[in-house]
Amino acid sequence: MANTAILLMHCPDQKGIISYTTQFIHENQGNIVYLDQYVDREENRFYMRIEFDLDSFLIPKEKIKDYFSTLLAQKYNMTFKLYFSDQKPRMALFVTKMSHCLYDILSRADSGELQVDIPLIVSNHETLKKVADKFNIPFYHFEMNKANKAEQEEKQIQLMGELNIDFIVLARYMQILSSDFIEHFPDRIINIHHSFLPAFVGAKPYHAAHERGVKIIGATSHYVTSDLDAGPIIEQDVAKVSHKDTVKELIRKGKDLEKIVLSRALYKHVNRKLLTYKNKTIIFD
Amino acid sequence: MANTAILLMHCPDQKGIISYTTQFIHENQGNIVYLDQYVDREENRFYMRIEFDLDSFLIPKEKIKDYFSTLLAQKYNMTFKLYFSDQKPRMALFVTKMSHCLYDILSRADSGELQVDIPLIVSNHETLKKVADKFNIPFYHFEMNKANKAEQEEKQIQLMGELNIDFIVLARYMQILSSDFIEHFPDRIINIHHSFLPAFVGAKPYHAAHERGVKIIGATSHYVTSDLDAGPIIEQDVAKVSHKDTVKELIRKGKDLEKIVLSRALYKHVNRKLLTYKNKTIIFD
Amino acid sequence: MANTAILLMHCPDQKGIISYTTQFIHENQGNIVYLDQYVDREENRFYMRIEFDLDSFLIPKEKIKDYFSTLLAQKYNMTFKLYFSDQKPRMALFVTKMSHCLYDILSRADSGELQVDIPLIVSNHETLKKVADKFNIPFYHFEMNKANKAEQEEKQIQLMGELNIDFIVLARYMQILSSDFIEHFPDRIINIHHSFLPAFVGAKPYHAAHERGVKIIGATSHYVTSDLDAGPIIEQDVAKVSHKDTVKELIRKGKDLEKIVLSRALYKHVNRKLLTYKNKTIIFD
Amino acid sequence: MANTAILLMHCPDQKGIISYTTQFIHENQGNIVYLDQYVDREENRFYMRIEFDLDSFLIPKEKIKDYFSTLLAQKYNMTFKLYFSDQKPRMALFVTKMSHCLYDILSRADSGELQVDIPLIVSNHETLKKVADKFNIPFYHFEMNKANKAEQEEKQIQLMGELNIDFIVLARYMQILSSDFIEHFPDRIINIHHSFLPAFVGAKPYHAAHERGVKIIGATSHYVTSDLDAGPIIEQDVAKVSHKDTVKELIRKGKDLEKIVLSRALYKHVNRKLLTYKNKTIIFD
Repeated sequence: MANTAILLMHCPDQKGIISYTTQFIHENQGNIVYLDQYVDREENRFYMRIEFDLDSFLIPKEKIKDYFSTLLAQKYNMTFKLYFSDQKPRMALFVTKMSHCLYDILSRADSGELQVDIPLIVSNHETLKKVADKFNIPFYHFEMNKANKAEQEEKQIQLMGELNIDFIVLARYMQILSSDFIEHFPDRIINIHHSFLPAFVGAKPYHAAHERGVKIIGATSHYVTSDLDAGPIIEQDVAKVSHKDTVKELIRKGKDLEKIVLSRALYKHVNRKLLTYKNKTIIFD
Repeated sequence: MANTAILLMHCPDQKGIISYTTQFIHENQGNIVYLDQYVDREENRFYMRIEFDLDSFLIPKEKIKDYFSTLLAQKYNMTFKLYFSDQKPRMALFVTKMSHCLYDILSRADSGELQVDIPLIVSNHETLKKVADKFNIPFYHFEMNKANKAEQEEKQIQLMGELNIDFIVLARYMQILSSDFIEHFPDRIINIHHSFLPAFVGAKPYHAAHERGVKIIGATSHYVTSDLDAGPIIEQDVAKVSHKDTVKELIRKGKDLEKIVLSRALYKHVNRKLLTYKNKTIIFD
Repeated sequence: MANTAILLMHCPDQKGIISYTTQFIHENQGNIVYLDQYVDREENRFYMRIEFDLDSFLIPKEKIKDYFSTLLAQKYNMTFKLYFSDQKPRMALFVTKMSHCLYDILSRADSGELQVDIPLIVSNHETLKKVADKFNIPFYHFEMNKANKAEQEEKQIQLMGELNIDFIVLARYMQILSSDFIEHFPDRIINIHHSFLPAFVGAKPYHAAHERGVKIIGATSHYVTSDLDAGPIIEQDVAKVSHKDTVKELIRKGKDLEKIVLSRALYKHVNRKLLTYKNKTIIFD
Repeated sequence: MANTAILLMHCPDQKGIISYTTQFIHENQGNIVYLDQYVDREENRFYMRIEFDLDSFLIPKEKIKDYFSTLLAQKYNMTFKLYFSDQKPRMALFVTKMSHCLYDILSRADSGELQVDIPLIVSNHETLKKVADKFNIPFYHFEMNKANKAEQEEKQIQLMGELNIDFIVLARYMQILSSDFIEHFPDRIINIHHSFLPAFVGAKPYHAAHERGVKIIGATSHYVTSDLDAGPIIEQDVAKVSHKDTVKELIRKGKDLEKIVLSRALYKHVNRKLLTYKNKTIIFD
């Protein structure tokens, strides 16, 4: 496994940012293995992702953030995050009854394609416990209803804390999270919505798509904000359909879209390939 | 050029429709060159497209409709249309200032790919007169404003009648037609909307798409009904975009989608490959 | 579960085939729930798929084939196959070391999306035994080398026979089957090849794609014939790539194509939605 | 119109290239409006595209190349090209009988989407003279046969020189150019091939695709080298087809692919968004 640091940053566009940042890394014996940058000319904003090797890096890992903050981030008014490739993110999976996204994610984690730890699976039903068992992942059942929602969410938040969860994936979790819950995990809850947003926000998008007679269906993975289905979009894809497709067929065909789109989004999140700004994502590939 | 008749029909699903219809054609010495049928099991409705050779057909062309109506359509409660391949549809093109769809359609007509007559181009601006001139097609300029809209539309309707126009194509025509105008041409006005409907109905969809941060843009061709951008969808397609795409880039990339999607829809309409039922299209390909 | 019969047939195109076939079903109290037909005008050949309900059907299940053969197939020189929806096909999975297709298939079978029985998984390595174990499916390890190939294949053929295997899926099985093996299972071995055939036949297609600098990669699912990677194509799909994609990235992105394309092909095969003729597939959807 | 310089360069990867290059521009009062870079870690090669405003640039336009070469390119062993946005490339169009690509390109040039001058259209047939006339572009007819090929190509080369042609587009030009001709225009001849290369190299790819029974067809735009259909690929796209598609239908559907793929490639070439290295393209978007 690589021993690298990944820096994701954005700031007002100015001269010399790449130059100073790469100089900081080079002077401290870091070898840059990836650099990509993007300037939004309308917002006049600069975005960059740098990954550099730590093997000979002079600054101790735990102090890099501090040094970078003092020497560069303040100077350029940067917002930045620093990650280390040897620290696997800890992911919680929230599911309800459909298994396709769950299986897809677990098989990728199992094969090593997706470098994450999955300390738990959370569900409002017991249906998918058997899948969790196959992969030896603890399964937590939280029955949800109107009366107990606030209380159950409170317990979930506490559980996330105890297990040091970095981010949450709603893998076809058929519950709407409260704003309170969402605020605990900014840019750290990823949802898959079964339509090409902003078309068909909310419940039963395949029924709505069938009713409207569309010739394409889609799926959208996005960060969850308190505004329903309106958070920053990470990934979208579509499939052609025809008048022959019943709602049942749309659901079946849509499943493949959902799982692939969600897993692509997870891959980017886990490999620190995206950042968000003003309700949009900037993606480095 | 082929000398065929094309029958498009739908009716409640019953036993024997294919059998009786094909028998009617065979008995009268028609040779079927295409037959496709579809049953919507939910609506319990049967749809069929049959094309047959007229060279040895015993019933005179002008009486086929009558015979079919009496002998079959009434018996099965069919709604049907009958077309002849040697009668080119007469198409009116409505445009404003953008030339990409116009050029695409005219070049297809010119090369013979699209078998239509184009007796006129209508516009609310003079900008594209030069394109009409290149192809020697009469260009009618109707200046439109709030005050004269009803009057101008009245004149347009009259002009369509005088020129025996079969259907109208809104090739990026930036005017909203009145319900009155639309009612004169049911299932006979085709529009191209520059989004994957039902997302981004109405004006400036690329600006809205950019604002929302979508990762795909689309275009939709549909029959025009009095409900804005809500008529039966004929064809849709999409293209991937990224955070790097400015509104200007979305517009540029979208143009290719628009012209291809519109031309595909026209091809199906002109070749009698689709019918509509309950605000949806059934397409035979 | 539905109790239906599915008839797949082809024959020289003649008048009255649909009519006689549907009459045969109706007269015996069968209710047609699906009918689709296609005529290849160049080959002058007729293809049809009919599915009909057996609940009130007068002919006993075990005699339908006989009756149909005598009363219709001989008359029209039909080649046909008859299936029953309550008889799940028995599928053998052949794998080597990569798990993505295997997991995808097993999860679909587990959720009921893919209606098959999987009596065994065969591999030339032990790597994926742990996946078989998760799903409680017997795992057979056949070590393969030049010297033992004929002998091992002989044992595999015998095993397929003992377990009444209907068809074999090569889910990234990295062995070339002998012609002898293949001839035991005509149109009953499905492979996934990791390129858009006929580009990049044979080994290491992603390396070849990278070397050539293509902008799209693909995957192809096809029936296996003794001509390498040249059997009837069932399903293909592609993904866009760029100069930034290393071979490793092409392999990673290609996996998603492979598993989705293979599973779509399996779905069609298992649900009897395709037939083959002259090294091509005709697909009813 | 913008008054910018565009620098496309590649060199062995070393520290400080971005920094020194941007410093050179900044010190001379150039304002960078675009910068994108890419490092091929396997080839250890650095690629960059920089576009900068010339309005206040201190070095006179005609001397920039010289200065850059002396001060930077030699130091870093760069291969580079310098373009100015106010100098429209001069493009020659070579066609035979099919008009779809020709119309598509001319309409884009006419609308200003494609910023090129088109001093001539060359053809081995007279068929498309009428299209050239519509757009008032000189049309040169060079009849080609085995006997006169060398002589005619010699005349064409001379004509390109007289008209200061920057690059040549083979817009479905059905002649194979000689190596001699090709060597006069390295990375300056763009072809559209009607298949997803490397599948179906050479003549009649749609016939071959039909024969093979593929489920997707494609088109490929590439720079022409003396190795047939094997030059650096710029752009590819595909469309789904089915067993229902005759060769004629493949040809019809393929035309849309061809014209869109070719025009996308032209846009990138004309806007200096790509460079080639070792028979591959690196594309900045």
